Amino acid sequence: MNSIPDLLGMIAAICTTGAFVPQVVHVWRRKSAKDISFGMYSILVVGVLLWLIYGVLIHSWPVILANAATLVLALAILLLKIWYERRDRCVSEST
Amino acid sequence: MNSIPDLLGMIAAICTTGAFVPQVVHVWRRKSAKDISFGMYSILVVGVLLWLIYGVLIHSWPVILANAATLVLALAILLLKIWYERRDRCVSEST
Repeated sequence: MNSIPDLLGMIAAICTTGAFVPQVVHVWRRKSAKDISFGMYSILVVGVLLWLIYGVLIHSWPVILANAATLVLALAILLLKIWYERRDRCVSEST
Repeated sequence: MNSIPDLLGMIAAICTTGAFVPQVVHVWRRKSAKDISFGMYSILVVGVLLWLIYGVLIHSWPVILANAATLVLALAILLLKIWYERRDRCVSEST
């Protein structure tokens, strides 16, 4: 850490990755993900995966670590979305 | 564009920024944002704003453009969330 841009970039990375934590908690607590866009999280998972590969190719640990964490969180939201939609479909079919 | 990492980074940036478009459309169409985390989009807006300042400081147009677009989309989702919550509160108070 040797400059203001470096420090700013690090705080920015922590925010844009950490931001997904309250969303995982929110969906998990509400047991609902109807307002969450399947399209958003599908494209996001692909994008973050590409950032991860990019990080590996340019040997950048900050890019690798930030995107590995975001990938886990975005995948968790996507899987919860799929899980709750399947549950809702089963409930509506059985009633 | 002169290497595979550059191309990969560009596609990754388009995905992680573009991903927010279907979420804006989804919330707008459903007229509901209950499952959207206020915490996520508040932290995200701060993080993207810091990325934007970082981009200006390091004179990186790709960082500036990608984060300016993400900022508009994330702000739109946050404002829709606030708008719909206020509407729901008014409806529940009037009934």
